[in-house]
Amino acid sequence: MTHYPPPLSGRAQDETRELRPKFNSDGLVAAIAQDAATGEVLMLAWMSAEALRLTLETGKATYWSRSRGEIWVKGETSGHTQDVVEIRVDCDQDAVLLKVRQTGGACHTGRQSCFYRIADASGLTLAGEGEAG
Amino acid sequence: MTHYPPPLSGRAQDETRELRPKFNSDGLVAAIAQDAATGEVLMLAWMSAEALRLTLETGKATYWSRSRGEIWVKGETSGHTQDVVEIRVDCDQDAVLLKVRQTGGACHTGRQSCFYRIADASGLTLAGEGEAG
Repeated sequence: MTHYPPPLSGRAQDETRELRPKFNSDGLVAAIAQDAATGEVLMLAWMSAEALRLTLETGKATYWSRSRGEIWVKGETSGHTQDVVEIRVDCDQDAVLLKVRQTGGACHTGRQSCFYRIADASGLTLAGEGEAG
Repeated sequence: MTHYPPPLSGRAQDETRELRPKFNSDGLVAAIAQDAATGEVLMLAWMSAEALRLTLETGKATYWSRSRGEIWVKGETSGHTQDVVEIRVDCDQDAVLLKVRQTGGACHTGRQSCFYRIADASGLTLAGEGEAG
């Protein structure tokens, strides 16, 4: 069982040099994966304490699958792995940012990023559609 | 009261051209703000249906403050506004990505991004510390 010290309050949490993740009521922190080379935001997933520890130890992005209720090493089945270049935490440590080297598409639809649709008042448009030149 | 049609299942949700946000049990979707010019990930926040509608309508990033339990127009107090250049939704529409023009720091600590600390096995380091050159 992975154990981290509990989060501090306010400014102490913002400035601590200790990893003190602030897990939600499901025991998870949000994890943003970003392509380390291009800056493209690839996906948003979730990490349990165990998933965070494994990611830090192995350098392979490892999440908690909320639908399957289990640890999920990204790409274990698909081969679309994420090698972690850098992990950052946000001010209150309830979110982490992974800068990764993505192999294949990050999205289960096969696309590079999960964020392939642009929203506006009229609905959604596929990114890349209708672009001039 | 803002109302969106309910999410579809599986592939239908992945491919729909309708905005059908998949709100969590608190009625929220995760919202990642990214600097439209530099690609820097600035913060992770949350949006209610109302916050999402207001963001789409006004072009000003508007979130749901979980701590205060109210709609929060980013920068309304601090002046550190986010002008939305583009909004994207992810495959299952439980997360949105805002590409923004950030005025001032996005973080309440005054920093440009909330993700200012790098995590490794030994703890946290401020980004920019200990860098050569």
